[in-house]
Amino acid sequence: MAAKKFDRSSLEQLLSKRFFYTPAFSIYGGVAGLYDYGPTGCALQANILNTWRNHFVLEEDMLELDCTIMTPAEVLKTSGHVEKFADWMCKDPKTGEIFRADHLVEGVLEGRLEGDKLARSEPIAAEAACPEGAKKKKEKKKKGAVVAVKLEDSVKAEYEHILAQIDNYSGPELGELMKKYDIKSPETGNDLTEPVEFNLMFESSIGPTGQLKGYLRPETAQGQFLNFKRLLEFNNDRMPFASAQIGKSFRNEISPRSGLLRVREFTMAEIEHYVDPLSKKHARFAEVKDQVVRLLPASVQLEGRTELSEITIGEAVEKKIVDNETLGYFLVRIYLFLTKIGINPERLRFRQHMSNEMAHYACDCWDAEIETSYGWIECVGCADRSAYDLTVHSVKTKEKLVVREALPEPRVIEKLQVEINKKVFGSKLKRGAKPVEEYLTALDEAAAQKLKDDMAANGGKINVTGTDGNEYEVTSEMVSVEKVTIKEHVREYTPNVIEPSFGIGRIMYSLMEHAYWTREGDEQRSVLSFPIGVAPFKCLVLPISNQAEFQKPLQNLTSNLRRLGISSKIDDSSASIGRRYARNDELGTPYAITVDFQTVADGTVTLRERDTTKQIREKVEVILELVNQLVAEKITWEQVLEKHQVFVQQEVAN
Amino acid sequence: MAAKKFDRSSLEQLLSKRFFYTPAFSIYGGVAGLYDYGPTGCALQANILNTWRNHFVLEEDMLELDCTIMTPAEVLKTSGHVEKFADWMCKDPKTGEIFRADHLVEGVLEGRLEGDKLARSEPIAAEAACPEGAKKKKEKKKKGAVVAVKLEDSVKAEYEHILAQIDNYSGPELGELMKKYDIKSPETGNDLTEPVEFNLMFESSIGPTGQLKGYLRPETAQGQFLNFKRLLEFNNDRMPFASAQIGKSFRNEISPRSGLLRVREFTMAEIEHYVDPLSKKHARFAEVKDQVVRLLPASVQLEGRTELSEITIGEAVEKKIVDNETLGYFLVRIYLFLTKIGINPERLRFRQHMSNEMAHYACDCWDAEIETSYGWIECVGCADRSAYDLTVHSVKTKEKLVVREALPEPRVIEKLQVEINKKVFGSKLKRGAKPVEEYLTALDEAAAQKLKDDMAANGGKINVTGTDGNEYEVTSEMVSVEKVTIKEHVREYTPNVIEPSFGIGRIMYSLMEHAYWTREGDEQRSVLSFPIGVAPFKCLVLPISNQAEFQKPLQNLTSNLRRLGISSKIDDSSASIGRRYARNDELGTPYAITVDFQTVADGTVTLRERDTTKQIREKVEVILELVNQLVAEKITWEQVLEKHQVFVQQEVAN
Repeated sequence: MAAKKFDRSSLEQLLSKRFFYTPAFSIYGGVAGLYDYGPTGCALQANILNTWRNHFVLEEDMLELDCTIMTPAEVLKTSGHVEKFADWMCKDPKTGEIFRADHLVEGVLEGRLEGDKLARSEPIAAEAACPEGAKKKKEKKKKGAVVAVKLEDSVKAEYEHILAQIDNYSGPELGELMKKYDIKSPETGNDLTEPVEFNLMFESSIGPTGQLKGYLRPETAQGQFLNFKRLLEFNNDRMPFASAQIGKSFRNEISPRSGLLRVREFTMAEIEHYVDPLSKKHARFAEVKDQVVRLLPASVQLEGRTELSEITIGEAVEKKIVDNETLGYFLVRIYLFLTKIGINPERLRFRQHMSNEMAHYACDCWDAEIETSYGWIECVGCADRSAYDLTVHSVKTKEKLVVREALPEPRVIEKLQVEINKKVFGSKLKRGAKPVEEYLTALDEAAAQKLKDDMAANGGKINVTGTDGNEYEVTSEMVSVEKVTIKEHVREYTPNVIEPSFGIGRIMYSLMEHAYWTREGDEQRSVLSFPIGVAPFKCLVLPISNQAEFQKPLQNLTSNLRRLGISSKIDDSSASIGRRYARNDELGTPYAITVDFQTVADGTVTLRERDTTKQIREKVEVILELVNQLVAEKITWEQVLEKHQVFVQQEVAN
Repeated sequence: MAAKKFDRSSLEQLLSKRFFYTPAFSIYGGVAGLYDYGPTGCALQANILNTWRNHFVLEEDMLELDCTIMTPAEVLKTSGHVEKFADWMCKDPKTGEIFRADHLVEGVLEGRLEGDKLARSEPIAAEAACPEGAKKKKEKKKKGAVVAVKLEDSVKAEYEHILAQIDNYSGPELGELMKKYDIKSPETGNDLTEPVEFNLMFESSIGPTGQLKGYLRPETAQGQFLNFKRLLEFNNDRMPFASAQIGKSFRNEISPRSGLLRVREFTMAEIEHYVDPLSKKHARFAEVKDQVVRLLPASVQLEGRTELSEITIGEAVEKKIVDNETLGYFLVRIYLFLTKIGINPERLRFRQHMSNEMAHYACDCWDAEIETSYGWIECVGCADRSAYDLTVHSVKTKEKLVVREALPEPRVIEKLQVEINKKVFGSKLKRGAKPVEEYLTALDEAAAQKLKDDMAANGGKINVTGTDGNEYEVTSEMVSVEKVTIKEHVREYTPNVIEPSFGIGRIMYSLMEHAYWTREGDEQRSVLSFPIGVAPFKCLVLPISNQAEFQKPLQNLTSNLRRLGISSKIDDSSASIGRRYARNDELGTPYAITVDFQTVADGTVTLRERDTTKQIREKVEVILELVNQLVAEKITWEQVLEKHQVFVQQEVAN
C-alpha cells in the first residue's frame, strides 16, 4: 500500500529538512557517494546499532572486536581483494565520462522496456503504472532514455531474461551484450571502450618512507580472521562461536548513485560465526525452524524467473534449498532483526547468489533484499565463506589458524612417514640439513609415496629442492619412507565461516522509505512511523505558547525524562502547536507532552501519540510513568487508550 | 602509591592475555601504530563512549553528527592542514632510519640526565629511583643511551630547561639543539640530516579517474564546521549551542611508539561549542565555579618550571589565568568526566599550550594531561579555535557561515556606499557590467573612500579590474560614492568555537594504568579496579565445579541478568574457583555470582566483590536485585555489607 502512494522526492525533502543526512562537503560542491548524518540520522543509526548489538552480540555472547581500517596491502593480497575486488567500467573516450558496465547495461535495457511499455499502452495507463508518474518520465527524457518504441516480443523476452540475471555476467560478457544490443554512451551516443576492471579499494601508504602500501578495508571481516587464534583462546577453545564488529568500511565506487544505497564510505556490522565443517548444525535451530521466509533461489533466477517461495526455514534446510542449519538459523535471526527495527516483512526477501556474482571468498550466499523505490536492494549478505580466509592467511603467514579438539577416543591410523637418519643426514648435508629436513617433513602422504618410489627406481638416491631453493642429493642411507601406525588423540581442523554482513546505511534508508507516509486528506503532513526502539527521539516536550510561566514545568519535565534515560527534545519555538506537532511527526518522535495553562493550574499535561494523533490528559507523574513504560515496550498505546480517556485538545492561536 | 609500585610490563602482559588490545596484523609481523581492540577492550571503549555521550551530548543537548572520514584535499587545504599539519623528521642517511626530531632530542637529553643521576649516586639508590629497576637499565643499555656520565651542573640545568619546553621548538630550532648538543643517530652514532617537515595526513584519491585527491581526516572537527549552517537551522537559529562527533581519525605518525598513546588510527570524541565572540560567558558556569583544578599555565612553563597551581575555576577565570567562562566550564566538565570513568584526580592536570606548540587554528589551548608511566600524557585538548575555521571555509566557498541576530533596537550607522547608475552603467559597460558591479559592491569602507578620492583626483574617471580579471573604465556618471545612513536591525557575526577534543585510546590506556594494582602478599594476583559504569563485564557467573546439576541454575542466572540488561560472562572452565576469581579480577569484573551444591539445595548463591574479595550468600532473587541496584549505582558494596552477613567460601578442589 505504502509503495503505491510513495513519492520519493517528498521523502528526500523531508530527510534533508529534518537533517537525517546531507551530501558531505556540500558547501564545496559535494563529492559523489559521501554523506554526513545529522543529529536525527545519527540518533537513528545509533539506535539501530544498539538494537543490533543486543539482538546479536549480547543474545549470543559474540566476541566483539574493534580493528583498524588501514590495512597493509599484503593482507588484502592474501585475501584476494587486490586481485578480485573490482567492478567493470567502460569509458566514453570523447567526454572522459566513466560508467559501471553492469549498471549501464541494466539502465539502458530497463529504459527500452519502459519505452516499449509506453508504446504498447495508452498514455494515461502508462503513467499510472509508473509510480512517480509524469515527473520520472520527464527526468528520463532529459537523459534521452525513454522513447516510446515498441520492441519485438522476442526481444522483450530476451531483455527480461538478461535483467533477471544481470549480476551474473562477467566483464567480457557485458562487453558482448553491449555490442549485441548496440549500447552506447547514453547522453552522447558515443561508442564506449571495452569493460576493464577497476579495483574498488582506496589506496594509501603507511609511514614516512612511503614504502608500505595500505588500503582502507573494504569489509570488517579480515581483522576478525587475523585475530582468530586469540579469539578462540579467549573463548576457552570452545567451538562454535562468533566474533562481530561494527565499523566503517570503504569502496571507491565507480559512479555512485541512488543516495545512501551506493556510497563510498559506510558503516557495516559483520558477524563471523566459526563452525566445524563436518557439522553445520545449530544448537538453537529448533527455536527458529517454524519461521516462514520468502526465498528466491539461484536456480529460479537462472531460469529468468523471480517468483518467491514462502516456506518455513525448517523445510528449506530439509530440502537443501538452504544448505545447512547454521545458515538457516542466521537467515531467520536477520529476518527478526530487520522486522524488529521496522522493515515491512512483505517487502523483504532472501535471494541466493548465482555462481558468477558470488564474491571470490564465498561458496554460498543469500542476500536479505528489501524492496524500495529503487527496486529490491541487497541490505544484508549471509555468506558461507567456507575455510577460505583462515586457510589463505594461514598458508601465507605460516601461523596455524585451526581448532584442536580432544577426540573422545584416540584414532589409530596408518600413514607413510619420512624417517631421517639424523647422524648421516647432518654430516652429509651440513648447511643443507635444515632446508632439506623442512622440505621432507612437509611432504604429504602422496608426495612421500612418490619420493619412496622415485628413490627406489633411481637406485636409492634422488635430488630434492630444500626450502632454501637449492638442490641436494638425498640417499636411502640418510632417509627412509616407512609406513607407521599413529595414535591420534586430537583432531585438528580449520573452521568454516558463516558471515552475516549488514550494510547499515542501506538498511536505514530502506527503513525510512517503509516508515514514511502522509496523512489522509492533507498532503503536507508527512509522518515517519519509526518503532519506538529506533526513533531518534522518544518524546517531544513543548509549551502550548511562549508564556514565561511554562518554563518551570518544561524544565521539570525534561530533567525527569533525562533521569529516566529517555531521549527527548524541547520545541519552544514560536510556531503554532499544530505546526510543531507536524514537525514532530516528521522527526518520527512517537510521543509529545504538552504544557498548557491547565498544567499551571492543576499539574496535568497532555500526551499525544504520533500515528493516531490521539491525546490523553493526566497528572505529570502519571504521564511520565506511562512514557517510561511505553519506551521500555512494557505497554502499548492501545492499552493506554483503554485505560485513559481521550482528550480533545483546544489549539491556541499564538 | 600505585605509581610507585607500578610495573608496566606486568600490566601489558595482563592486557594482552585478557585481550584488551593487541598489535594489529600481528600474524603478518604487525604495523607500528595500529592496534585492534579485543572483546574486553571493545566493551571498555563502548562503555567509556556511552558515558561520554550521556555526560556531554545528552546532558547539554548537543547536536551529534556522523561525518565522513574521506575528505577532499580542497577542504583540508582551506583549513590549513595540508600546509601546516606536520611534524619534523630527520634521517640517518646511512641506515635510512627516520626519527621524529623533537622525540629524538627529548630522548637523548633524558638519557643523559639519567646517566648523570647514575653517576652521581650509589648503584643501589639509582636502581630504586628507576621504577622498572634493572630491567629498564638493561634495555636502555642495549640502545647505548644510558651511560653513567656526570654532567656539569650548568649543563644539567640547561637540559632540564630545554625539556620543560620541548614542545615549543620549531624544526630549525631543533636542528640547532642537535648541533649544539651533538645529538646523533642513537644506535649508529651517524650524523643526521636537518629536520624537514612531514605532513601527517594519509593521502588517497577518490573515484576511478584518480583526479580527486583526498585525505583521511586528521580530526572530526572539519565535518562539523562544514555543516554549521544546517546545525544552526536545526537548532532554530539559537545560540550558543554545540555539535559533537565520535569517530575514527588518522595521523600518519613518523615513528609511533608508546603503545596506545601514539597511534596512526584512533577514536576521537570532539565537541564544537559555538559562542558569541563578544560574550564567552556560560549560563551554567555558577554550577562549576567552586571546583578546584590543577593548572600549569604557559607563563610558568616558559620559565622552565612545572609546579601546578591548585585553584578554583572561578578564581582562575577571574584572574584571567583561564581566558573565559566557557573555556573554564568545559575544563571542569572534562575533569568530572575523567574522574567519573576512573582517572585518579591526583594524577590529572591542565597544561596550557605555549605559543609555538599551539595548533595553527588555535588561539588558546589547555590540555587535560594524565600522569602515566610514560609521563604526563595529553588526553583531552580544550582549544579556543576563535572564528578561524568558519571564516576560512566561508571565504573559500563564499557560503555565509554566520549567525544573524535581531537587535533589541535598530542601530543607526553612517557608511560610505558605492551607488550605481544602472542605466548608464549597463549601456556603457555591456558584458563588463556584471564583473564590475561585483567588484564595486564588494569594496569595504576604506576601498570605497580610496575609489572616491582617486576618481576625484583623476577628473571623474578611473580604471578598475572586474571579477572577470579584465580592466574597465568607470566614470562619475556611472558610479558615485556617497555617505548614507543605514538602520541595521540585525547583527551578523561569525561565532567563535571552543573545542574539547578527546583522544579515547589515550584516556583508555591511562585508565588501565590507574585501575591496575596487585594484591598484597601475592604478586600473581593482579586486579583492574574499573568503576562499575565502564567495566567491560558487570558480573561473572560461575559454577563451583563441573557438575551437570549446576547447568540449570547457571542458565537461569544468565537469562535473568540478560533480561535486566546486565552484561555478564560465564566461566565454567575446569580451572579452580580461586583461579577463576583471579581471572575475573584481571578482566576488571566487579561482581561474581557462584552456583554451588547449596544452591541446588536451598536456592541461594554467593556474591563476591572484586576489590574487597568479600562475599555474601542470599537467595538468587535477592542477589539479582542487589546486582541490579549495584550496576545502576543506586547502592554501594559498603551498604550491601552493612545489611548482609559476610560469607566465608569454602573452596572446593576440582
